[in-house]
Amino acid sequence: MESVGLWTVFGSEVVGTFFLILLGVGVVANVTLSKTYGNGGGIITIAFGWGLAVFAAVYAAASSGAHINPAITAGLWASGADEYAPGVPVTWASTAVYVLAQLLGAFAGAVGAWAAYRRHYDDPDNEPGAALGTFSTNAAIRSIPDNVVTEVLGTFVLVYVVLRFGDTPTEVGPLAVALLVVGIGVSLGGPTGYAINPARDLGPRLAHAVLPIRGKGSSNWDYSWVPVVGPLVGAVLAGLFSHVPI
Amino acid sequence: MESVGLWTVFGSEVVGTFFLILLGVGVVANVTLSKTYGNGGGIITIAFGWGLAVFAAVYAAASSGAHINPAITAGLWASGADEYAPGVPVTWASTAVYVLAQLLGAFAGAVGAWAAYRRHYDDPDNEPGAALGTFSTNAAIRSIPDNVVTEVLGTFVLVYVVLRFGDTPTEVGPLAVALLVVGIGVSLGGPTGYAINPARDLGPRLAHAVLPIRGKGSSNWDYSWVPVVGPLVGAVLAGLFSHVPI
Amino acid sequence: MESVGLWTVFGSEVVGTFFLILLGVGVVANVTLSKTYGNGGGIITIAFGWGLAVFAAVYAAASSGAHINPAITAGLWASGADEYAPGVPVTWASTAVYVLAQLLGAFAGAVGAWAAYRRHYDDPDNEPGAALGTFSTNAAIRSIPDNVVTEVLGTFVLVYVVLRFGDTPTEVGPLAVALLVVGIGVSLGGPTGYAINPARDLGPRLAHAVLPIRGKGSSNWDYSWVPVVGPLVGAVLAGLFSHVPI
Amino acid sequence: MESVGLWTVFGSEVVGTFFLILLGVGVVANVTLSKTYGNGGGIITIAFGWGLAVFAAVYAAASSGAHINPAITAGLWASGADEYAPGVPVTWASTAVYVLAQLLGAFAGAVGAWAAYRRHYDDPDNEPGAALGTFSTNAAIRSIPDNVVTEVLGTFVLVYVVLRFGDTPTEVGPLAVALLVVGIGVSLGGPTGYAINPARDLGPRLAHAVLPIRGKGSSNWDYSWVPVVGPLVGAVLAGLFSHVPI
Repeated sequence: MESVGLWTVFGSEVVGTFFLILLGVGVVANVTLSKTYGNGGGIITIAFGWGLAVFAAVYAAASSGAHINPAITAGLWASGADEYAPGVPVTWASTAVYVLAQLLGAFAGAVGAWAAYRRHYDDPDNEPGAALGTFSTNAAIRSIPDNVVTEVLGTFVLVYVVLRFGDTPTEVGPLAVALLVVGIGVSLGGPTGYAINPARDLGPRLAHAVLPIRGKGSSNWDYSWVPVVGPLVGAVLAGLFSHVPI
Repeated sequence: MESVGLWTVFGSEVVGTFFLILLGVGVVANVTLSKTYGNGGGIITIAFGWGLAVFAAVYAAASSGAHINPAITAGLWASGADEYAPGVPVTWASTAVYVLAQLLGAFAGAVGAWAAYRRHYDDPDNEPGAALGTFSTNAAIRSIPDNVVTEVLGTFVLVYVVLRFGDTPTEVGPLAVALLVVGIGVSLGGPTGYAINPARDLGPRLAHAVLPIRGKGSSNWDYSWVPVVGPLVGAVLAGLFSHVPI
Repeated sequence: MESVGLWTVFGSEVVGTFFLILLGVGVVANVTLSKTYGNGGGIITIAFGWGLAVFAAVYAAASSGAHINPAITAGLWASGADEYAPGVPVTWASTAVYVLAQLLGAFAGAVGAWAAYRRHYDDPDNEPGAALGTFSTNAAIRSIPDNVVTEVLGTFVLVYVVLRFGDTPTEVGPLAVALLVVGIGVSLGGPTGYAINPARDLGPRLAHAVLPIRGKGSSNWDYSWVPVVGPLVGAVLAGLFSHVPI
Repeated sequence: MESVGLWTVFGSEVVGTFFLILLGVGVVANVTLSKTYGNGGGIITIAFGWGLAVFAAVYAAASSGAHINPAITAGLWASGADEYAPGVPVTWASTAVYVLAQLLGAFAGAVGAWAAYRRHYDDPDNEPGAALGTFSTNAAIRSIPDNVVTEVLGTFVLVYVVLRFGDTPTEVGPLAVALLVVGIGVSLGGPTGYAINPARDLGPRLAHAVLPIRGKGSSNWDYSWVPVVGPLVGAVLAGLFSHVPI
């Protein structure tokens, strides 16, 4: 297997996560911000939008195995894999490169989605908190232990299916991962908006904190650790459970 | 063909049916329970949610052929198949292992979905009977002979297509089975909520009976045999009809 | 190529068209009849329901190439094909067997859908004409020449794509044909409900005429020739246009 | 690789773009014009309609690589490709043939969609501007620099994914391109209706200008350059960015 350099991994994960968040934040903006053509599109539109964001991103990040999610990286690590992608050995350095690139790409993708919807973000008819709701997740009913459980379960499903049958999203196939994410979204997204990816939540939250959005309100940092810790716990559990021989 | 042990079959069917019901009960909870992000998502969301639950489950239960449904097991038996999956001969013991694992996995999956949506299950704004409606099926218009006919027809379509072209869901392909279940859901789910799987109905109904849900009401046991008997009859008819040489 | 007998073709087309209409009439019943779980599901539910009805039917009718539509048979004939499916030569006899089986299967499928939804068909809360609307198509704005044009265009798209890239639906792939029908439905179904298949309209209309449905009203025979002639004209045009070398 | 003549390219692109616009304009007509069966179908119906329009069109235009979009042609040119499709070298002449055929096919497809929906276009109950809204895009909030940015971003995603993994839409696969367009639609279509294709906007706008539609109003020519320039800029940027080795 040909070796893939860490700069390639870095670039690939930045671009893939950029696409993921550009399209993922974009669909929530389309459905929830004022005056867009997709306003009111509902959960089915949002779920397909995030799923197809994964679809485009997995194509774009093929050379690094398209983790585009620290939970996938963590799950592979916990599963005892030798490589993060064909030609990319599991080391502390490669792990850091994946996670850093994912955070950077997620931040950049959120800025891109903001650029695409700038006038709609600034529209005075938006509901309070609508802007943050496009960037980051929140609990529908705040109850931290329950919210963590929900994120653990959703991420467990994602990472376990990816690990057992594909090792990385590119090997299980872009469409299969996309549909898996649609399914998790409609099925387990109800209580916490299914972060299931620490970078997907943290990168856009940082973007929300710094972008000049009219009346944007708080970035809700006190909740921000839930969609980081929950997915990482779910991913590690999935990595460990993947050792069970079934 | 390598032989697959019954413990592997047991584990595989438990995990697969767990995923099926976690995601399947989850999507109905998301659409029907109070204050979720998917509230009011409608039939298209529910149908895709159950279909993609099958999709994830078929990947997870590959080594046992991913029956995840006693109707598939019964249909294979009635079709005269030699094996339930590559390396798993059809015997009384293997049949019992499949069905037991499916019931156990379905019960556990319902508990998982309840854990993911716990605060929404306990929400006082839920409609009466909403909790049971996420776990188990019921007739829109109670008329037992008609309700049985509807379940027979839906399961006949599922099992006949799976049998003739794939023998097991894993061989016909996860996406194909998923889409078949979406189709049966939107087309034949109107009168009885398409159990088309005895374990899918009975396991969660048991979970409903034992879980501590505020104001949960009756578990509607007098209807509970319809989504067991109807699917089994439909499956056996499909197994027999698969002998017709077309 | 092994020869396929006409009895096999007959059985295959009956079963395939039965599945097509069972699920296709079923989805309209689910969305439009009173008290169903899918009531009000809208155009997207109906379009996916018919598309996935095609999906199941193409699997079921594989040995005859899964025409399940006289327009496909007519298009192949007009294209100058030698065979209707691998091993089935184009003759007057085979043409008659295809069309007869399609009509019979469509009639039977409509009876099956009626059986699945019997209590909902008899519900006094249904809109007038709702029953017929589940079985057969009608013009949203009656204007016979325009209605014919719409059916010609929709069928042209279906048959041309199938002919040029697959010869029969089974060769172009069940999913591809299913998605093509979803696309034609959402895009060209607005004015006439996209029969694009004479058997799909005529078989269920006959079933409507004879089934004991409470308050079912007229079977609208004066419109019935439009969804027969329009699709056949579109199919023959597609067959002829498939000779253009692009 | 066998050489493909420019007449074949011309015919293939005309037919493919005709199908694209027939179905794409058709779905917007179905959802937005008065009295259609799909009225009110919402963003999810429109996004799947355009995606499946791409799906049918890519099958129909296989011999020319199914650009069916000057942005794809421009992106391939900027990427430094040798061929526009297997057997079609990149020259000024071939570039002109692609673009001319795309505009002609788009115009013809719009006329076809108008023919399919003629009575609905003339219906006096339509909203003002509804007819133009089915043919061409417009800004939800007019702000030309922002509108250009949105079109640049949407087209960048489309062209970059197609370039890096398939070179042409036919090589990346009809379903993959279709789903990519669904994703871009739901995610980035909110502010400008995602032209992402100059021919898709300009051809139908010309058709709107000349067709005899009752009360059709202005063709909004002052906006018409945005969905031409934005997509071309996005496509060239994607072509250049595809040289970055990740």
